Amino acid sequence: MTGIALLGAGRIGQVHAKAIAEAGATLVSVYDVMPEAAKAFAEMSGATVCDSADAAIQHPGVDGVLVATSTDTHVDLILASAEAGKAVMCEKPIAPSLTEARRCINALGDKADRVFIGFNRRFDPGHAKVHAAVHGGEIGALEQLTITSRDPYPPSLEYIPVSGGLFRDMMIHDFDIARWMLGEEIVKIAAEGSVAVDPEIGKLDDVDTAIVSMVSESGKQIVILNSRRAVYGYDQRIEAFGAKGMLISDNPSDTSVKRFGSDQFAAPDAYATFFMDRYTVSYRREIEAFVHMIKTGEKAPVTAKDGFMASYLAEAATLSSKWGRSIDLDITGQSTWGSRPS
Amino acid sequence: MTGIALLGAGRIGQVHAKAIAEAGATLVSVYDVMPEAAKAFAEMSGATVCDSADAAIQHPGVDGVLVATSTDTHVDLILASAEAGKAVMCEKPIAPSLTEARRCINALGDKADRVFIGFNRRFDPGHAKVHAAVHGGEIGALEQLTITSRDPYPPSLEYIPVSGGLFRDMMIHDFDIARWMLGEEIVKIAAEGSVAVDPEIGKLDDVDTAIVSMVSESGKQIVILNSRRAVYGYDQRIEAFGAKGMLISDNPSDTSVKRFGSDQFAAPDAYATFFMDRYTVSYRREIEAFVHMIKTGEKAPVTAKDGFMASYLAEAATLSSKWGRSIDLDITGQSTWGSRPS
Amino acid sequence: MTGIALLGAGRIGQVHAKAIAEAGATLVSVYDVMPEAAKAFAEMSGATVCDSADAAIQHPGVDGVLVATSTDTHVDLILASAEAGKAVMCEKPIAPSLTEARRCINALGDKADRVFIGFNRRFDPGHAKVHAAVHGGEIGALEQLTITSRDPYPPSLEYIPVSGGLFRDMMIHDFDIARWMLGEEIVKIAAEGSVAVDPEIGKLDDVDTAIVSMVSESGKQIVILNSRRAVYGYDQRIEAFGAKGMLISDNPSDTSVKRFGSDQFAAPDAYATFFMDRYTVSYRREIEAFVHMIKTGEKAPVTAKDGFMASYLAEAATLSSKWGRSIDLDITGQSTWGSRPS
Amino acid sequence: MTGIALLGAGRIGQVHAKAIAEAGATLVSVYDVMPEAAKAFAEMSGATVCDSADAAIQHPGVDGVLVATSTDTHVDLILASAEAGKAVMCEKPIAPSLTEARRCINALGDKADRVFIGFNRRFDPGHAKVHAAVHGGEIGALEQLTITSRDPYPPSLEYIPVSGGLFRDMMIHDFDIARWMLGEEIVKIAAEGSVAVDPEIGKLDDVDTAIVSMVSESGKQIVILNSRRAVYGYDQRIEAFGAKGMLISDNPSDTSVKRFGSDQFAAPDAYATFFMDRYTVSYRREIEAFVHMIKTGEKAPVTAKDGFMASYLAEAATLSSKWGRSIDLDITGQSTWGSRPS
Repeated sequence: MTGIALLGAGRIGQVHAKAIAEAGATLVSVYDVMPEAAKAFAEMSGATVCDSADAAIQHPGVDGVLVATSTDTHVDLILASAEAGKAVMCEKPIAPSLTEARRCINALGDKADRVFIGFNRRFDPGHAKVHAAVHGGEIGALEQLTITSRDPYPPSLEYIPVSGGLFRDMMIHDFDIARWMLGEEIVKIAAEGSVAVDPEIGKLDDVDTAIVSMVSESGKQIVILNSRRAVYGYDQRIEAFGAKGMLISDNPSDTSVKRFGSDQFAAPDAYATFFMDRYTVSYRREIEAFVHMIKTGEKAPVTAKDGFMASYLAEAATLSSKWGRSIDLDITGQSTWGSRPS
Repeated sequence: MTGIALLGAGRIGQVHAKAIAEAGATLVSVYDVMPEAAKAFAEMSGATVCDSADAAIQHPGVDGVLVATSTDTHVDLILASAEAGKAVMCEKPIAPSLTEARRCINALGDKADRVFIGFNRRFDPGHAKVHAAVHGGEIGALEQLTITSRDPYPPSLEYIPVSGGLFRDMMIHDFDIARWMLGEEIVKIAAEGSVAVDPEIGKLDDVDTAIVSMVSESGKQIVILNSRRAVYGYDQRIEAFGAKGMLISDNPSDTSVKRFGSDQFAAPDAYATFFMDRYTVSYRREIEAFVHMIKTGEKAPVTAKDGFMASYLAEAATLSSKWGRSIDLDITGQSTWGSRPS
Repeated sequence: MTGIALLGAGRIGQVHAKAIAEAGATLVSVYDVMPEAAKAFAEMSGATVCDSADAAIQHPGVDGVLVATSTDTHVDLILASAEAGKAVMCEKPIAPSLTEARRCINALGDKADRVFIGFNRRFDPGHAKVHAAVHGGEIGALEQLTITSRDPYPPSLEYIPVSGGLFRDMMIHDFDIARWMLGEEIVKIAAEGSVAVDPEIGKLDDVDTAIVSMVSESGKQIVILNSRRAVYGYDQRIEAFGAKGMLISDNPSDTSVKRFGSDQFAAPDAYATFFMDRYTVSYRREIEAFVHMIKTGEKAPVTAKDGFMASYLAEAATLSSKWGRSIDLDITGQSTWGSRPS
Repeated sequence: MTGIALLGAGRIGQVHAKAIAEAGATLVSVYDVMPEAAKAFAEMSGATVCDSADAAIQHPGVDGVLVATSTDTHVDLILASAEAGKAVMCEKPIAPSLTEARRCINALGDKADRVFIGFNRRFDPGHAKVHAAVHGGEIGALEQLTITSRDPYPPSLEYIPVSGGLFRDMMIHDFDIARWMLGEEIVKIAAEGSVAVDPEIGKLDDVDTAIVSMVSESGKQIVILNSRRAVYGYDQRIEAFGAKGMLISDNPSDTSVKRFGSDQFAAPDAYATFFMDRYTVSYRREIEAFVHMIKTGEKAPVTAKDGFMASYLAEAATLSSKWGRSIDLDITGQSTWGSRPS
């Protein structure tokens, strides 16, 4: 039996707990900074409530640790779990800052491969099918990759200052998708951010609308478009163009109903407007992958290094947007780009 | 140079005249019962106005005759033209009644193959592509054929009594499509007609909504759906289902524009609501086929026999709907079905 | 807590058991003619194995009975469960013959409304959305209804003789969909069946390809197309055409991936080829509806009367196809149609 | 009667000549450097062959001049025609270099508004519909504009050195589309070019694959993707994203046929692979607009200033790609960007 400790009993923790049961694993222990949350959760799931993260990690029967706490605690919990010899799964991002993320992977060393960073979009069935086809050679050499990622509506204004900004909070998913699709690193990035959705976001020194163009090691071209608001629902598409064709992972609709009226239109059905609806399947598949990783001892499907590289790109994009110029990158993620040009 | 005589200078005649010029043929002579119409037309096209149909047919330089007059004159003009050794193209239907249609093909004898009945939908690019694929074996043996044919709005009430009724006036196109797709004859037909669009049509002893099911010689199954009114525009689709797949000729839209709004709809663009818009290309291609037929001496792509058989099916459908029972058919179209069962 | 007894621990029983847990109800008791099947099942679910259907029905804590046994046992188990005051859900069809089905509803009397016949397609999200829109008036008066229902591949030849034939086994789903969409009864039916898929099916006196046309009380027209084999996967579509528009419930694809290659096509993704994949959601929603019906004491969403009427139409279609003529129906389902006309 | 002089009797000249006749104007005079081409052309059209461009321009009855000669002659012929008081239509680009283009508009002065630069894609029905909807407010404020423009196959290698390079030859269309959709000028541009299609193109110091990101005066974000080769045919799409929705002008297919086979694919029909097929309608509509402009004395729908600004952006993109950095632009197009940074 595969036993899992859950750190953080919030909304996403609950989603994961359900998926753990469905994946045939057992939630053994749970810890949350708010004991009431952990307790309520334990009653529902049968897990033991622990009064510290360490106790939950060290609880008998725990093979893997699922870190679903606030971002500022990620690094310490990842390190403690890995140190205890557990497989780890941690929500993105790996850390609130690039410095912290670098500290994490340096401390992890070889153990980084057993830390699974929860970039759940890799587990979306459509995106995964395009990835498989690209890497299976269906479109020959990949030449241009376009990633569109627009949320239905912006987060609360309270969240903006602690989010790290659009590039680190939202586009980080797309940086991960880009590296995964490309199978190679980015060597140049140019970002443009603007405030089109809500001027209050601008007052908080963030942007809500952004485009990024990038070039990879072998010269492939990548474009990412982000907006904090799409009135028609989640808009998360990938277009992979190559020498022998093109693959698109388009937005899923909730049914295949078409409507034809006197205003002469035929309507595909609604897009999701809540992330749990949009990514139900990928959250479930992600946990299945974690349980599989625990059982087999295999490398994480998204490693701590991947989590770090996404943070590295997010940092670069943030600076590129502020500085108004492109930035050349180091494919190891170790070097940085100096200070703003005069 | 290929010379053509045009009988009938009405709206459809004008469409054809333009297509004749584009197909590289010359309109030599024109006749219309209203001399003013012919004259206006001749001025535009350079053709000679003739004061009788015979004069137009016999005019020097005429190789083919295009009959675009009222239905009651079709048979006589077809026979006169064929007698004069001309290739003939005539608008559907071949005659106002099955008896007249039968007289026509009997009188034509071998010349029936040089009489082209204008079932223009065979020349629709989408329909023609499905026909080519079916006959090229793409879906293996054809097993079920579904033809949907709905007009945007009903004809004027004045037209209803002279139309011959829905089956003879409107569904006749679908009978022709069915025979063409099948490549074989129909042996059984069952029709249902009802009045759903406009009760005035019912008062004129016609129907405006109908379904027909048919079985062909080799047991293939055919369904036709007709309505005199589709608020979303022309709805003319063909679905061919077979052992190895399915082909659909769907409705064309005027552009590929898609709209995504806060009501969460993506809209393909408008369907045509005017037959000239819907069938612009097929009218042009039909005339090209006529010019080709004149030049090469080949058989008409839709012969007088085809025109007759469509009328035979329309007649049977009309009676089946009235009698409330299916009718067994003679594949030669010669025998009839007796009178209504008691 | 809502307690359920499961009669029949086969494949579909297992699917339902999972859905029962997800719907927040408890599987209390289980019975199967093969004690090993019941036992294995009980171990997994925690239910008590009973050595008779009656024991399972009468087991303490049982509020509803789910009948998932072979068709020949349906009537007795429905009656026993209803007699015991339980809510009942039974797989379609209600009985192997129309006579048995009639006996069942006559014996049930008022209790027929608390017997839920598992026509799961009503719970398909796309079909249900079209139903809601039709009954919400979105397309005005419904005028023509087209139901296409093709299976990916035929059942085993062993199953054919016990299936009751295509109309009773397969098209029965479509008869139920038709009545549900129409909201009224059928007054006339004409069926055509043929053998196109496999001649062995014909030798077993069944057909594998069929079309049915029907007329409802108020004159609406209905067409059903069935085939036992569609190489492109499940093909189960509904088209509702009305005075103000058209609604189509098209086939769902497993993702929204599109492929563009040098052979110039863009491909929507795969259709399901296994019924559990095609109807996963509807099976789950069906059980939710059953649990809701138990808790609220409401009428079944598909009653025993509905189950009977679908069987009545299936019987009529079978005879119509054999007799080669249309049959007039009694909207109460009580009268029958006499014998074959000479 | 509207009379037109045609300078240049090559392939595109012939397309225009046909459109001139269809638009109800008359081709009066024609000039080509190869007298045989002009003569053959005149015989077909009835126009007078002139032995100099000036003679053709000055020929009695000429109201407008259509310049369809090689790019290096554009400026002189535009100026001569405008000087003679004629309306002018000239194929894109306005001139082979930005310096020449600047000379042209400076010399034209007020007459620049009566010079129509043939950016025919503005007349594509789908693109035009999106433009009308954007400017009609359908999607609120435009925020992100994505233009994808991929040719089916690269031009001949002979053409590459005289083309001016991808940005000036191919992407110039997209720069024009961007300005037209935005209704404002570009203030910053960053281009990336690479050689992915054919290394021979790289040896000729050109690129075949490019992305450009731009920012407009009011902060709107624009992305352009170009490739010289798309195996699935012309890929020319526009996506306009705004506060109230999104509009996409997708690729048109030649019919609405869909194919469903055992490999479980439904295929929209073929995309064009020849520019005349892709843009047949827009070429015709462009000439109609020119005839309309002559008759009404209105301003050109695409002016010489528009032609100049597209060249300005193409020049900037070429340098940005070479220099590896973004370039800030002058919205008047007069200032330039200095030399390459050290």
